[in-house]
Amino acid sequence: MEYVLGHGTENDFVLLPDLEGRLDLEPAAVRALCHRRRGLGADGVLRVAPSPDPGAAWFMDYRNADGSLAEMCGNGIRVFARFLVEAGLAPAGTSAIATRAGLRVVELGDDPDGEVSVDMGPARLGSDSAALVPSSVGPAGFVTSFPGVAVDVGNPHLACVTTADLDALDLTVAPGHDVELFPDGVNVEFLTPLTPDGVTRLRVHERGSGETRSCGTGTVAGAVAALRAVDLDSGTVTVATPGGVLQVGVGPGLGSAPGSTTTLTGPAVLVARGEVDLAADPAAPGELRALVRLRDTAGV
Amino acid sequence: MEYVLGHGTENDFVLLPDLEGRLDLEPAAVRALCHRRRGLGADGVLRVAPSPDPGAAWFMDYRNADGSLAEMCGNGIRVFARFLVEAGLAPAGTSAIATRAGLRVVELGDDPDGEVSVDMGPARLGSDSAALVPSSVGPAGFVTSFPGVAVDVGNPHLACVTTADLDALDLTVAPGHDVELFPDGVNVEFLTPLTPDGVTRLRVHERGSGETRSCGTGTVAGAVAALRAVDLDSGTVTVATPGGVLQVGVGPGLGSAPGSTTTLTGPAVLVARGEVDLAADPAAPGELRALVRLRDTAGV
Repeated sequence: MEYVLGHGTENDFVLLPDLEGRLDLEPAAVRALCHRRRGLGADGVLRVAPSPDPGAAWFMDYRNADGSLAEMCGNGIRVFARFLVEAGLAPAGTSAIATRAGLRVVELGDDPDGEVSVDMGPARLGSDSAALVPSSVGPAGFVTSFPGVAVDVGNPHLACVTTADLDALDLTVAPGHDVELFPDGVNVEFLTPLTPDGVTRLRVHERGSGETRSCGTGTVAGAVAALRAVDLDSGTVTVATPGGVLQVGVGPGLGSAPGSTTTLTGPAVLVARGEVDLAADPAAPGELRALVRLRDTAGV
Repeated sequence: MEYVLGHGTENDFVLLPDLEGRLDLEPAAVRALCHRRRGLGADGVLRVAPSPDPGAAWFMDYRNADGSLAEMCGNGIRVFARFLVEAGLAPAGTSAIATRAGLRVVELGDDPDGEVSVDMGPARLGSDSAALVPSSVGPAGFVTSFPGVAVDVGNPHLACVTTADLDALDLTVAPGHDVELFPDGVNVEFLTPLTPDGVTRLRVHERGSGETRSCGTGTVAGAVAALRAVDLDSGTVTVATPGGVLQVGVGPGLGSAPGSTTTLTGPAVLVARGEVDLAADPAAPGELRALVRLRDTAGV
């Protein structure tokens, strides 16, 4: 099985070219490939398959590292688009990619070190709320409350603009949130107020994953909250995440006016390519493990 | 640049075949390859180079993930030996590998799923001492003291046999230790008393790395301490680490009698092979980044 490793702002992926759509990717295979010590190591797998939708040539079959299905990934689709162009499967420029969340339009140039834009769809502002984080002062068990706003970008976010020291926040545990407003949990962003030239720093705690280096939808939600905090209705925001810098375009009505949308622009790097095989894991019934037999492949 | 990924009990490595010894491996290259999100992701690099010592054909040029030189690695040399045999560079059976710590003898069969043994050299028992770990009960700042013994396996260890619940130990911070006995810091092992059939469970905090899934010399130090705790002078110990199961052979005098030695036996798996390149990192002067240009390589 051939693979390509890639990342977008340190959100990393195993790309599996399956150009004839023959690969039956079982969850155990995804777990084995994504394992960071016994496998290739990644946040998820992007299978490159023919699109069932006539509006796109290719379908991004995205799986989380635990083997579960995922609808969309703003960092993943940029890496996916980079692969298509680099592999000669799509021309540079604007094209559509099919995802479980529907068709998404991407735009990129010919330069493999350039940036890739993806239309992330509309954002929907919700209620004001708050996130609770373990307090850095006072006795154990004390929490600090950060005002924030609910933003739906296809998945739920709570984006908190704060003047507090971002680096001092304890995000090793999930921030507390209003469970009536977010019955299925929520991704929580903490970000600094917009500078005059439209820059914010952002940290994110992803539902089910913990703190991550970068989160595509979280970056969009943060940009929406940052613009709203300075009473802007639309604009372009530069978001510095721990994994790298992204640009977010937010259309009228903070991305929610009719016909309005949001875009995410940032790097997408292909890191390496190679061959890997999978076999039953004798140590764990039902699980697989990644391996390679050098004697079966060409050269050293 | 061709690479092979491999691991031994979840201690993972990037192997770089440099069969003519032409590769000048700068620290920035090692850091770029080992980065777990922007690179291939590994605990270290094993460059496969011709041996300057006539007693061995190949030299294991081992580098830590931060780019620093390392003398020896009990898990790394097993993966190195597996690569040599799988790549047809050494026959199965017993052979010597040159390391910065001198020649080391390895033994392995033809089965790529089999185990690899390595002679780890003598062990030297030192003073009784203790490790201090944050207490799981009582106010913040309280610590629990675990009696242990110093064991030198080329590097310093403090091995603590304990009946406490291993899973409950907080190893997120380095255990406190006697700084006069261990002026350069120490690797600390916590392990359960030997069962009647010679099995112990072990967790390890590695100096400079934090808790790891497995540590070759730490496994040997733990086996020495486990045998001593039941007044044995030599023996074979099965050590279950978080990363997998290893066997340790300890010779007379707990590995320190004249001519006595210790051996480490366990799995060594080659996970994948591929191609990667390195280029200047525009985001960090002096650093490199891993990348691949698909258009320059054959096929997708």
